[in-house]
Amino acid sequence: MDTLPLYRQLAIHYRQAIDAGTLAPGSRMPSLRALMDRHAVSLSTALQTCRHLERDGYLEARPRSGYFVRQPRRPACEPVSEPAVRLAEPARYVGIQERVTSIIAQGKQYPVQFNLAAASGACELYPAEALKQATIRALRNDPSVLTSSAPPMGSAALRSVLAERALPSRIVLGRDDIIITNGCIEALNLALRAVAQAGDVIAVESPTYYGLLQILEALGMKALEIPSSAQSGISVEALELAAQTYRDIKAVVVVPNFQNPLGAVMPDESKARLVAWCEANAIPLIEDDTYSLLGSTDTPLSAAKAWDRTGNVIHCASLHKTLAPGMRLGWISAGRWHERVAQLKHAQSRAQEVLLQLAVADFMGSSAYERYLRRLRLALRDQREQMIEAVATYFPEGTRLTPPQGGLILWVELPGRASSELLFERAMREGIAIAPGQMFSNSDRFDSCIRLSCGLPYTRELNTAMRTLGSLAAEC
Amino acid sequence: MDTLPLYRQLAIHYRQAIDAGTLAPGSRMPSLRALMDRHAVSLSTALQTCRHLERDGYLEARPRSGYFVRQPRRPACEPVSEPAVRLAEPARYVGIQERVTSIIAQGKQYPVQFNLAAASGACELYPAEALKQATIRALRNDPSVLTSSAPPMGSAALRSVLAERALPSRIVLGRDDIIITNGCIEALNLALRAVAQAGDVIAVESPTYYGLLQILEALGMKALEIPSSAQSGISVEALELAAQTYRDIKAVVVVPNFQNPLGAVMPDESKARLVAWCEANAIPLIEDDTYSLLGSTDTPLSAAKAWDRTGNVIHCASLHKTLAPGMRLGWISAGRWHERVAQLKHAQSRAQEVLLQLAVADFMGSSAYERYLRRLRLALRDQREQMIEAVATYFPEGTRLTPPQGGLILWVELPGRASSELLFERAMREGIAIAPGQMFSNSDRFDSCIRLSCGLPYTRELNTAMRTLGSLAAEC
Repeated sequence: MDTLPLYRQLAIHYRQAIDAGTLAPGSRMPSLRALMDRHAVSLSTALQTCRHLERDGYLEARPRSGYFVRQPRRPACEPVSEPAVRLAEPARYVGIQERVTSIIAQGKQYPVQFNLAAASGACELYPAEALKQATIRALRNDPSVLTSSAPPMGSAALRSVLAERALPSRIVLGRDDIIITNGCIEALNLALRAVAQAGDVIAVESPTYYGLLQILEALGMKALEIPSSAQSGISVEALELAAQTYRDIKAVVVVPNFQNPLGAVMPDESKARLVAWCEANAIPLIEDDTYSLLGSTDTPLSAAKAWDRTGNVIHCASLHKTLAPGMRLGWISAGRWHERVAQLKHAQSRAQEVLLQLAVADFMGSSAYERYLRRLRLALRDQREQMIEAVATYFPEGTRLTPPQGGLILWVELPGRASSELLFERAMREGIAIAPGQMFSNSDRFDSCIRLSCGLPYTRELNTAMRTLGSLAAEC
Repeated sequence: MDTLPLYRQLAIHYRQAIDAGTLAPGSRMPSLRALMDRHAVSLSTALQTCRHLERDGYLEARPRSGYFVRQPRRPACEPVSEPAVRLAEPARYVGIQERVTSIIAQGKQYPVQFNLAAASGACELYPAEALKQATIRALRNDPSVLTSSAPPMGSAALRSVLAERALPSRIVLGRDDIIITNGCIEALNLALRAVAQAGDVIAVESPTYYGLLQILEALGMKALEIPSSAQSGISVEALELAAQTYRDIKAVVVVPNFQNPLGAVMPDESKARLVAWCEANAIPLIEDDTYSLLGSTDTPLSAAKAWDRTGNVIHCASLHKTLAPGMRLGWISAGRWHERVAQLKHAQSRAQEVLLQLAVADFMGSSAYERYLRRLRLALRDQREQMIEAVATYFPEGTRLTPPQGGLILWVELPGRASSELLFERAMREGIAIAPGQMFSNSDRFDSCIRLSCGLPYTRELNTAMRTLGSLAAEC
C-alpha cells in the first residue's frame, strides 16, 4: 500500500468508509480544506482524491456545494437473478473436453491482445522479485536441495506456514495433515480418486469451473449440476432435493469463496448446512478454496472445513492465484482420507520438488507477505471495479452482473438470447479473448453468459477493448 | 573425469583396456617404469594405479614378476540363473500397496545409517553447484519466470534439448512430441490411463519395480507378470505364450535398459521383436527408459522406441537418476496417444513449473553436462564393482548375482530358502536398509532375493556394513 500515490491511498480510505456506511449515500464528503488539514496533504492531492472517487462512482460533484457520497455506479448493471430452485438435470458423463478443446482451438486462430479469458492476475501483480530473492536464498542455504530426494509429503517448513496461514479461515490443521501437490488441480484429482471411481456421480455447482468438468471426464465420473447463484453459491436446498432423486451421489465439490465463474461467496450458515448435510448423508465434501484471500477487505472468509468435525471435508487450495501462477504449488488436507490420498499422491506423481516450497515458506512466513497481499487485494479491487464500470457503461441494456466482493473474474449475463459463442468468435477477431458460458456447464443454460477476467491492469487500451466488446455484445 | 586423481584416471584407462580384451587375462601389465614413461607420471602414481587395479580384482601381483591381468573377482558370484520359460501366472489385482507400506513402516522403526534400499545415487554424485548456478541464471534472465503461467506442455527449451539428447538412443523426436511431467511416475500414470482403464490386464516384467505395481493398484488395473532374466530382461517368448491364454492384455510395460530390479539390458533383437509383436497385436508398449545413460561405457543403449514405426511405443523417462533426484522432472513421448496424454496431463495436474526446466535445459545443453555424465558413469561403475566384490567376498556361498553393466542397483539371490524378509528385519536393526524381494512381485517367487543400491560411495564404513549384511544373510 505504501507504494501507491498518496491520493490513491486516501481514496481507498474513503472508499472503505463509504462501503462500510460510515459515510452514507447523500452525505457530504469532507471539504478539500478539511481533507488537507486532516491528512496533511496539498490541495492538489485532496482534489485528486475526490476526482478519483468521483471517477469510480463513489462521489458526485454538486456545483458550488462540493462532493457528495453516492452509490457506486455498479447497480447500473442489474444483479444476476437468483435461480429458482429446481430439480437438477440427470447426471451424465461430462462431454466438456471436446467443447473446451474446440473453443481453445478456435481461439488460437487469432493473436490475443487482451486475455480476459483466464482467471489469473497479470504477472506484474505478483511478487517476482521477492520470490526470486527467496529462491536464491533457499539455494544458497542448502546447495544440495536440487540433488537430494524431495520429502514425500512436501517441505515441512511450507506445510507449517500453510497450517498457520489457514487459521484465519478457521481451519485448524497440523502440518502433517497437509500434503503438497502439483497445484490445486492435482489436489482435486487426488480427492476425487480417494472417494469415488469411474461411473460415480459427483455433485458440482452449476455453472462450475470447466477444469473440474475436465477432471471428472478424464476420471470417467458423472457430473450432477446443482443450481448455484452469484449471491450465495450452491443451493443447498437444490442439492438436498437432487439427492432424493440421485441416491448414489459419491461426493460434492464446491468453491465456497469467490466461486468460479460466479464470484459467489456462500454465507456461513450455508457452509455450515452443507457440511452438516454431507456428514449426515455420508457424502464426502470436497472444497476448492483457492480464491478466498482475494476479497476486497482483510476480513478472512471461512472455509467449509471450518465446520468439519469428523474429517468428512477435503480441503484443496493453491498459490496460483494469490502468489505465483508459475509455481504450481497446491495442497490438500484430506481429513479421514489422508492416508489414502498420501498413497495416491505417491502412486500418481511422487513428491513435488522442494526448492520453490522453501522459497515460498520463507516469503509467506514474513511480514512482507502480508503487505504484498494487501497490495494485491487493493489492486484487484480496483481492477474489478473498473471492469464492472466498463460493463455497466459499454454493454447493452439488460446486461446483468452481480458485483463480486473478491476474486479475479466477472460473470456477465447478456440480455435476451444473446449468443456468447458468437461474441467469443467476434471478440477473438478483435484480439479479445473471453470465456463463453458453455464452457462452464454440460447444459446450454449459460449460453448467453460470459466470464471476464479482472486480472489485467485497467489501462486506456483495455478500456477501448471493453468498449469494443460492449458494442459486439449488443450485436450478438 | 578431470577432477579424479591421476592414478584413478590411469586405472580407469587400463580397466577399459582389460574389459575390452586389449589386455587379455594372463598377460603382463606394463611395468611401473613403462607406465611412468608412457604417461609421464611419478613412480608413486604408477604404483597406486596398479594397486588400485589389484584391489579391484583386475590385476594380480606375482612376486618378482610384476602385475598380471586377471579376470575381476566378480565371477566368484555365480550369475543369476536364466529362468525357464513358463506360462505366466494368472493376472490378478495387485496387492502390493499393503505389502510395501508394511515394509516401509517396519523400516521406520530403526534409524537408517546405510540406505541400500533406494535406487538412487548419493547426493554428492549429482552436479549441485552447476544446477544451482543455472537456476540463478534462469531467475535472472527472466525475473517473472515464477509469476507467469507455466507453458502447458513444458519449456520449449528443455523439450528441444531432450529431443536432441534422445538421438543417441536412436529415438527421433520433435520437441512437440514431448510432454514434461512430474517425474517418470506421472509419465507412467498418464501412459497407462491413456491406453487402459480399471480392471484391464497389463503385462509387466517379473520381478518388476514395485512403484509400477503401486501405480497399477491405484488405477485398479491387473498385473500379469512375465518372466524376465538378469541377462536379457523380459522374455518375449513368455509374453507371446501368455498372450495365448490372456487375450485381453491392454498394454505391456518394460524397462528395456538396466531393468529395475534385475539390472538387465534387453538385447537389440529382443527389443525389435517386442516392438513388432506389440504392433502386430495392437497392444501398446510402454517403456520406462530412466536408467539407460548409466552404463559402464559411453556407448549409448537403444530405446525400444527406436524400432517404433507406427507410434505404438510410449516412451517415458526422467532425470531423477541421471541428474537431480530432487527436481522431479520426467517426460513422455506418447506416439499415437500424444493428444490423449496431453489432455490427461492437463486434467491431472496442469503444467510443471518452468524455472528448473530452464536451468536443466541450460546445463544439459552445455558440454559440462557431458563431462559430468562421464564422471557419474565412472563413479557408479566403481561403486557397482565394489559392491559386487563385497557381495562376492562377504555373502554366503551359493549367493547368485549377475553383474549388471550399468544402473544403480544389484539384484542378489540368496542361497537355498533364505528369507529376504528376515534379512530385511535383521539388517534394519543394524541400521542397514535393503529392499526385500517380495516388494517386486505379487508372487512369492523372489522371497530369497534382495535389491541393493550401488548409489553410495564405497567407504570403509559401507564395507563394514556389507560385511555385516553378508553375515546376516548367512543366518537367514
